[in-house]
Amino acid sequence: MSAPEPRASVSTRGPVLIVGTGLLGTSLALALRAAGVEVQLADTSPTSLALARDMGAGALHGEDSPEPQVVVVATPPDVTADVVVAQLSAHPSAVVTDVASIKERVVNEVRSRAGAEARRYVGSHPMAGRERSGAGAADSDLFAGRPWVVVAQDSDPQAELVIRNLAVDVGASPVRMGAAEHDAAVAAVSHAPQLVSSLVAARLEELGEGALALSGQGLRDVTRIAASDPRLWSAIIVGNAGPVVGLLRRISDDLGALITGIEAAVCDPDRPEHTAPGAARVVAPGAVGAITDVMTRGNIGRARIPGKHGGAPHRYTEVQVLVPDAAGELGRLFSDVGAAGVNIEDFSLEHSAGQSAGIALISVLPAAALRLEEALDAQGWRVVAG
Amino acid sequence: MSAPEPRASVSTRGPVLIVGTGLLGTSLALALRAAGVEVQLADTSPTSLALARDMGAGALHGEDSPEPQVVVVATPPDVTADVVVAQLSAHPSAVVTDVASIKERVVNEVRSRAGAEARRYVGSHPMAGRERSGAGAADSDLFAGRPWVVVAQDSDPQAELVIRNLAVDVGASPVRMGAAEHDAAVAAVSHAPQLVSSLVAARLEELGEGALALSGQGLRDVTRIAASDPRLWSAIIVGNAGPVVGLLRRISDDLGALITGIEAAVCDPDRPEHTAPGAARVVAPGAVGAITDVMTRGNIGRARIPGKHGGAPHRYTEVQVLVPDAAGELGRLFSDVGAAGVNIEDFSLEHSAGQSAGIALISVLPAAALRLEEALDAQGWRVVAG
Repeated sequence: MSAPEPRASVSTRGPVLIVGTGLLGTSLALALRAAGVEVQLADTSPTSLALARDMGAGALHGEDSPEPQVVVVATPPDVTADVVVAQLSAHPSAVVTDVASIKERVVNEVRSRAGAEARRYVGSHPMAGRERSGAGAADSDLFAGRPWVVVAQDSDPQAELVIRNLAVDVGASPVRMGAAEHDAAVAAVSHAPQLVSSLVAARLEELGEGALALSGQGLRDVTRIAASDPRLWSAIIVGNAGPVVGLLRRISDDLGALITGIEAAVCDPDRPEHTAPGAARVVAPGAVGAITDVMTRGNIGRARIPGKHGGAPHRYTEVQVLVPDAAGELGRLFSDVGAAGVNIEDFSLEHSAGQSAGIALISVLPAAALRLEEALDAQGWRVVAG
Repeated sequence: MSAPEPRASVSTRGPVLIVGTGLLGTSLALALRAAGVEVQLADTSPTSLALARDMGAGALHGEDSPEPQVVVVATPPDVTADVVVAQLSAHPSAVVTDVASIKERVVNEVRSRAGAEARRYVGSHPMAGRERSGAGAADSDLFAGRPWVVVAQDSDPQAELVIRNLAVDVGASPVRMGAAEHDAAVAAVSHAPQLVSSLVAARLEELGEGALALSGQGLRDVTRIAASDPRLWSAIIVGNAGPVVGLLRRISDDLGALITGIEAAVCDPDRPEHTAPGAARVVAPGAVGAITDVMTRGNIGRARIPGKHGGAPHRYTEVQVLVPDAAGELGRLFSDVGAAGVNIEDFSLEHSAGQSAGIALISVLPAAALRLEEALDAQGWRVVAG
C-alpha cells in the first residue's frame, strides 16, 4: 500500500463514519483516507474492524469521536435498512447513505420507518466489487472510473449533493436513478447473470476429470463469478427477488424452447429417419431454428454491452505475439514495444493449463499496428495472425 | 506473420491435405507449414481458399498434386462425415482424420458407410478455437499446449499413431477418448455453457442504455462467448443433441427450483408479512436455501476447473499496480519489474468503460511479491491491496 496522497480538490468534509468494514466499506475508507478525509470505522466484528484499522483505513469510532458529517452503511443488504434507520437517529445532523446492491426495499423501509428524518438519507450503489470479499481484499482504487448509482427521489437536495461529491472524491461517476429502475437494471446486468453462471458451474460438480481436462477459456469465463460468496449473494437476490424472478422466468422460457427445439435432433433408434446417413440435417430444421434464434439474439445483446469487449466500435487493433515461458520475456517484449514508440492501449496474456508459452494480446491504435508488428518481427518475436 | 521455422523432430510425413480452410483448417495448415511439412489446401469456397494460400498456409490441391499421406477434414460438422467418406475413397492409401467438435455421429456414420476402409479413419477434436472464425482469424499457434482428443477405438493402430504424431507436431497433447465419452465431456465444458451464455446475452437485447451502462466485468465474462457464430454452433449442437439436451434439462430443473425458491421472497402486497419491516428475512428461508444451494454447488464446480483460474493450488501471488492512462506507462512498469529482477508468471490489465487508469495484475512467485511491491513503490508506483 502506498502512502495516502491528499488530493487538491476534495469536496467531502469529514469526518466520515463507515459502518461495516467488509470489502466495500474498507475500500471506501481507504479511498477517502487517500483523499485526505478523516474516517471513523465501526463493525460488529472486532476482527474485521481491527484488520481495517491496521490497513490504515481509519480510526475506531467511539463515544468520544467527533460527530460525523456523513455516515456510510456498508453492511450485508439484509440488515442495511435497520442500520440506516439506527444511524439517522444516532447522528441527527449527518447525511446517511448505504452501498447495498439492492435499493427499492432498503429505500422503502427507511422512508416508512424514519419519517421526515429520511430526508437526510440518500441511497447509493457503487458499481464495484470483486469475487473476493472482506477487508483483506479491499482496494482504495476499487471505485475509480466506475458508475456510482445515487437514489435520491425523496432526499434533501443538499444531502444528495454531499453523496455525489463523496462518489466523485473516490474517483467514481455519480448516476442518478430511481430505486425500481436501479433494481431492474442490476437484475439484468448482475444478479441473473450471477445465478446462471452458478447453474453452469454446478453441473461440473460431478463431471469426470477427463472431461474437465478439456475445459477452455470459454468455460472459465462463463463460470468466473460462480466463485462468489453464496451467503452475500443470497441476501442480494432475496432483496431483489421480484426483478430477478421475472428475468429468470424469461430465461427459463427461452431455455424451454431451446430444449424442445434441440430434442427434434436427438437420435431416436425407433425412427429410421433419425439414424439414416445425414439424419441430423433431415430432422433438425426445428433445432437449427431454435439454436440460431437464441444465439443470434445473444450476438445482438452481447454487442450492446459498452466497454472494452462489447458495444463500442473497435477503436484498437490487437497485435498478438507469442511469448516464451522464460524469465524476463515479458519485460523484453514491453521494452521492445516502447522502443518502437507505440503506446499500449490494452494488454492481456492468454495461456491455458499446461501450456509452456503464452500469447500476448497488445491493443494499439490501428495506425500503429503494422509498424509495431514489423518492429517486433525484426526483434525476433513471433507475431501471430490476429 | 513470421517465417516458418522448421522444427528438428517432426514425425508427420507430408504431404498433408487440408479440406476446409476455415479457422481450424488454416491454423493447422500454418502450424504444419511452420514445422516444415508440405501442405495442400482444398475448399468449396474459392475466396477462403485463396486467402489461406495467400497467408502461406500451403499450395492449392489439384489433379497433379502428389498423393497425400494424411487428409484432415476441417469442414462444418454437419458435412464432416460425407467429406471423410469421400476422402477415404479418393485417397486409398491416406490416413484420414477430421477436427469436428462432435464425434459419435461422425464416427458412426463413417464406420457404417466406409466399411473396412474406415480403419484408415481416426476421429480428432483439437480443443482450440476462438470467437472469430474464418481463415483470416487463423493462428499457427492455436493448438500449442491444448488437448487434442483422438477417437480411434476401431482404427488401425498405425493410423492412430500418424494422427497422434500430427497433434504433437503442432504442439498439442493427444488424449485418447471414446466417441460417446468425448461428446458427453464437450457438452458439459463447451456446448451447454455456450448456449447458456447466449441465453443471458439474449436478455440484454431490449435492455435500456442506462441499465447497460452499469455492466461490469462479470457480465462481460459470462457473455463473451455469446459473440460466437450461430450457424457453426447450430451444426455442432444438432450433432451432439442427446448429451446437450440431457444437460440443458438438468440446468432447467435447477433453474426451476431456483425460481420457485426465490418466488417465496417476492413482495406480495396482499400478504402483510411480505411488506412488514424486515420482511425479506421473515419470508425468505426457502429462497435463501435455494440460492445458497445452487451457488455452493457452483463454487465447488468452479473450483474443479483445472488451469489458471480454477482448481490448481494458487502458486502465484498477485501484485496489483495502478497504471495511469498515459503513453509508455506499461513499458515503464515492465522495465521497473525487470530491474527488480522479478519474473512475471502471468499478467492482465483490468479496466472498465470510461475509466482513465487501469490496474495491472502481476502474478509472481510468492517469495518475490514483497520485494516487487517495495521496488515498485520506491519507483513511485501506486501498489494496491491484493
